[in-house]
Amino acid sequence: ISSKLPQVGTTIFTEMSALAQQHGAVNLSQGFPDFEPDPALIEAVAKAMRDGHNQYAPMPGWMPLRERIADKMKLRYGVAYNPDTEITITAGATQALCTAIAATVREGDEVIVFTPAYDAYAPLIELFGGTPVYVKLNYPDYHIDWDQLQHMISHKTRMIVLNNPHNPTGAVLKAEDLDRLEKIVNNSNILLLADEVYEHITFDGISHQSLTSRPALAERTLAVYSFGKTFHVTGWKLGYVLAPENLMTEFRKVHQFNVFSVHRPQQVALAEYLDSDSKWDVGSMYQAKRDEFLELMKGSRFEALPTHGSYFVLMDYSAISDEHDVDFARRLTIEHGVASIPVSVFYNVPTHNKVLRFCFAKNSETLQAGSKILKAL
Amino acid sequence: ISSKLPQVGTTIFTEMSALAQQHGAVNLSQGFPDFEPDPALIEAVAKAMRDGHNQYAPMPGWMPLRERIADKMKLRYGVAYNPDTEITITAGATQALCTAIAATVREGDEVIVFTPAYDAYAPLIELFGGTPVYVKLNYPDYHIDWDQLQHMISHKTRMIVLNNPHNPTGAVLKAEDLDRLEKIVNNSNILLLADEVYEHITFDGISHQSLTSRPALAERTLAVYSFGKTFHVTGWKLGYVLAPENLMTEFRKVHQFNVFSVHRPQQVALAEYLDSDSKWDVGSMYQAKRDEFLELMKGSRFEALPTHGSYFVLMDYSAISDEHDVDFARRLTIEHGVASIPVSVFYNVPTHNKVLRFCFAKNSETLQAGSKILKAL
Ligand SMILES: CSCCC(=O)C(=O)O
Ligand SMILES: CSCCC(=O)C(=O)O
Repeated sequence: ISSKLPQVGTTIFTEMSALAQQHGAVNLSQGFPDFEPDPALIEAVAKAMRDGHNQYAPMPGWMPLRERIADKMKLRYGVAYNPDTEITITAGATQALCTAIAATVREGDEVIVFTPAYDAYAPLIELFGGTPVYVKLNYPDYHIDWDQLQHMISHKTRMIVLNNPHNPTGAVLKAEDLDRLEKIVNNSNILLLADEVYEHITFDGISHQSLTSRPALAERTLAVYSFGKTFHVTGWKLGYVLAPENLMTEFRKVHQFNVFSVHRPQQVALAEYLDSDSKWDVGSMYQAKRDEFLELMKGSRFEALPTHGSYFVLMDYSAISDEHDVDFARRLTIEHGVASIPVSVFYNVPTHNKVLRFCFAKNSETLQAGSKILKAL
Repeated sequence: ISSKLPQVGTTIFTEMSALAQQHGAVNLSQGFPDFEPDPALIEAVAKAMRDGHNQYAPMPGWMPLRERIADKMKLRYGVAYNPDTEITITAGATQALCTAIAATVREGDEVIVFTPAYDAYAPLIELFGGTPVYVKLNYPDYHIDWDQLQHMISHKTRMIVLNNPHNPTGAVLKAEDLDRLEKIVNNSNILLLADEVYEHITFDGISHQSLTSRPALAERTLAVYSFGKTFHVTGWKLGYVLAPENLMTEFRKVHQFNVFSVHRPQQVALAEYLDSDSKWDVGSMYQAKRDEFLELMKGSRFEALPTHGSYFVLMDYSAISDEHDVDFARRLTIEHGVASIPVSVFYNVPTHNKVLRFCFAKNSETLQAGSKILKAL
């Protein structure tokens, strides 16, 4: 059998987490918390199972949970999504991304992807016959050059993928960015795929600029979110997607034949658990973690780049080593006992930035243990 | 946006279950049990969550669960699957089917599908640019005419989908069928997609003929299974796929970008729960349900067709009505209060068989209530 994805290997997240485990390293690589969810949420799932919520959920998801999502969107961004026709629960954000691309991208379409980019976008675009068109974010603050983007748009451009807050860089879009984007897509057929899984994790008083908050963008946006990232249950694989009805109709056509429906007990449980809007608030907790990690890293030879959102901070290690970041990240794990993610793997072309990504969604003990090793380098 | 799947609407399962609920009908339509899983399994999931199994599972699945699957395959079919390289846990069997087709079917490929066919196969094949080539099973016992199949094979044939035990008909493959299949695919590049989600549900002493049990077939087979169907937790959306390493490598390339990994607590729980092989045994329980339903239906004007496996029995209603089965099924739900599935929706062309599918994976009270209404017709 000849491969449909010949260039794809195992993801860097699988590789680095496995390497970390093998060498007993402090794992600051894959993006997941090493602390636990609210016990009340766990007990709510147990209760849902005992209450008999063990057979198929409705294909678009458990309605009360879709209603809680609609409430949140209203309160946070002032936008109205109809739970019946515009909200679908997914088996994690990745399945939402896959299904969104499956439903919209065809042979010959071009899709704009900003690099460094989350590693799933390009192979998914290619799987459905599309061509990723890469636009580089600008080091060291990783902003979008909108003039350059404008330049890269062609009559084949089907979609632009916008990940905000941005993984791996922690960059966030500003209101002015959305203004520029509006002008660019205005009067076009270009769709937007908004990967906003870190929507609640922004720092220093910066508010998340959701593409859903602008009607001129929302009308062409499939927006992807993650319960896993927000409620410290990445292993539960629960996400959701929002889109106007015409796009959601196409999304659901694929969704129903991709997973059909999603794990029901946790949908029932989350719907009950989300009895107040404040349950979604994790920004200040993560800001404290970021600050703790940066404080611990003071005096090290790693140079932290600014991060305004997400679980992540980039660190430039050029004062420490000349090695390529993949080699350096491996050696750091194996010889020194700290796992991170080399940023070059998020690019489509070789890069020479000496930058690693560290995940600070970790317990104090983990951050202390990791930073102690890193500071000694 | 123009649709990539213009011919696809909402699945019949969603439609009939919604109609059943709306009219308070006895729901013998969608294939799910209306009884509960073993409470020990529920408590094992609760324990896994409390024990901190809430972050990403490994991409191919929780290793101890893959090991239990390997044990089962060894014991039941005498075949060795390597849990490391040949077994992957999926978000239900549907996601396994989708991913298997995504990984192997390309623009221009033909895929053989036997009708009546589970409704997911054709749209998935088309989504990846393939063409379903339909071969009709033969009424009333729905056997495969292997000569006809041989005829339909071309140099474009990439894959044959074999659903055994068969949904919606309850037909099962015999050893002679596998002999014929072996001869047909021998020396070809044809892959086999084995949908064996009802593997444990066969009746009257018939043993399940898994494609995995024949080396000459297994070497080219992606085999799909369902924990949901076996442990009465269809709403948990947990399945798995078995394939030789070269095929599994391709499967996982897509899997990691479709869902990345699967709900962890239930994987941990099932691995612990599966402490004896007998836990998989549900065949005799379902045989008793089939027999109970058929007994209850004695004296009705519905004529049961033979069923040898699965949750389902087909009933010919030509003694009762001339209506098309879609109309008759709707009227039966709305006016009489019993929901079923019209079998014509499993065909690619209009059919005039007057046949409905009934799901007997139900409590005695449900079967009694349903059959009482049906008998009065
Ligand atoms: C789905 S595994 C990757 C988790 C993640 O979002 C990251 O580490 O970037
Ligand atoms: C995934 S919903 C359909 C369930 C089922 O297998 C059936 O009813 O045939």
